[in-house]
Amino acid sequence: MIAGKVVGSVVATRKNDKLVGNKFMIVELVGKMSGDAKQVIAIDNIGAGIGEYVLVAQGSAARVGCNMADAPVDAAIVGIIDDGTGLE
Amino acid sequence: MIAGKVVGSVVATRKNDKLVGNKFMIVELVGKMSGDAKQVIAIDNIGAGIGEYVLVAQGSAARVGCNMADAPVDAAIVGIIDDGTGLE
Amino acid sequence: MIAGKVVGSVVATRKNDKLVGNKFMIVELVGKMSGDAKQVIAIDNIGAGIGEYVLVAQGSAARVGCNMADAPVDAAIVGIIDDGTGLE
Amino acid sequence: MIAGKVVGSVVATRKNDKLVGNKFMIVELVGKMSGDAKQVIAIDNIGAGIGEYVLVAQGSAARVGCNMADAPVDAAIVGIIDDGTGLE
Amino acid sequence: MIAGKVVGSVVATRKNDKLVGNKFMIVELVGKMSGDAKQVIAIDNIGAGIGEYVLVAQGSAARVGCNMADAPVDAAIVGIIDDGTGLE
Repeated sequence: MIAGKVVGSVVATRKNDKLVGNKFMIVELVGKMSGDAKQVIAIDNIGAGIGEYVLVAQGSAARVGCNMADAPVDAAIVGIIDDGTGLE
Repeated sequence: MIAGKVVGSVVATRKNDKLVGNKFMIVELVGKMSGDAKQVIAIDNIGAGIGEYVLVAQGSAARVGCNMADAPVDAAIVGIIDDGTGLE
Repeated sequence: MIAGKVVGSVVATRKNDKLVGNKFMIVELVGKMSGDAKQVIAIDNIGAGIGEYVLVAQGSAARVGCNMADAPVDAAIVGIIDDGTGLE
Repeated sequence: MIAGKVVGSVVATRKNDKLVGNKFMIVELVGKMSGDAKQVIAIDNIGAGIGEYVLVAQGSAARVGCNMADAPVDAAIVGIIDDGTGLE
Repeated sequence: MIAGKVVGSVVATRKNDKLVGNKFMIVELVGKMSGDAKQVIAIDNIGAGIGEYVLVAQGSAARVGCNMADAPVDAAIVGIIDDGTGLE
């Protein structure tokens, strides 16, 4: 998993049917956990708010682990980090 | 998922049988979501047009989530972002 | 998927049994689709020749989509691009 | 797999139900095995301590190989390296 | 797949039960096939020796293709390249 900070969200009215009802959060990855890519869009499985530090699972873990095994989801917020300030 | 802008398409007359009937769109990734690689080729699952900002799912999510679980597809456009200008 | 140009092949006489009969092509990725890594070795599922531009599927899509779900294959050529000169 | 050194851990009180009971270790990757991203968060499957060098499995291997196939886990510590000093 | 040269191995006495009996080889990736990360640790499925050039399969292909589908393995040596000097 990687850690990041929720910095916004994206709205997609037209989308794959299996994605209906999900929120697409923009997560800015913590410095030492990000490569050249600094952000990822993740489904919110927990109820994270803007500014919170979160754990993001990527790949098949995101859909299989969040009860949406047949949805086109490759990243999901799966935890809220209690104190992420030390990670920056 | 990552966000990008559809900038073109690719034609492949000779291809794996399971790919017949699909469009291969060239997606230029949004700056903060791209690493050293700036583009990816994604199957269009939604009907995206050139210039539109899209959500792209990668890995097994692309084929499993788009009802083509047994096709050699590792990236799919799964949503059209209503306003992607803030992402650039 | 990513696009690349077939620039050579690799011979491996000793290999996993499930790989017997396959050709291992060296694909040089198109500039905007390559990261720091410029090449990948892909099974040829189509009959691609040296110098041709090809579509490469990566990850589980390569083996599942090419009828070799139980082989140790993580990249496959799945299409020949009709004209790849614009991609360079 | 990649090698890294356990440098800390992360606490997430609110998390996906399937993650309850797991420890989230921050692993700093060994220089030649890390890309631009220098750290990853991995479930501890072995009982690793801060400062130990560990083997980390990523992707579906992490959850399938650690008896948590339906959990949103994409990285797991699966071995303690007896002597990792030569890897730095 | 990617090509690399076996440069060493790692010993892990404490490890996931499904990994017992496996050798963990350090593979230095061939220049054009490596990104920022220059090395990976791979299970040896073939009997590769130090200094040999090898084919490495990554991701689920490594465990599914090497008859260890339920082990936490994400990289495996699946072939010995007959002559890898042209790849450097």
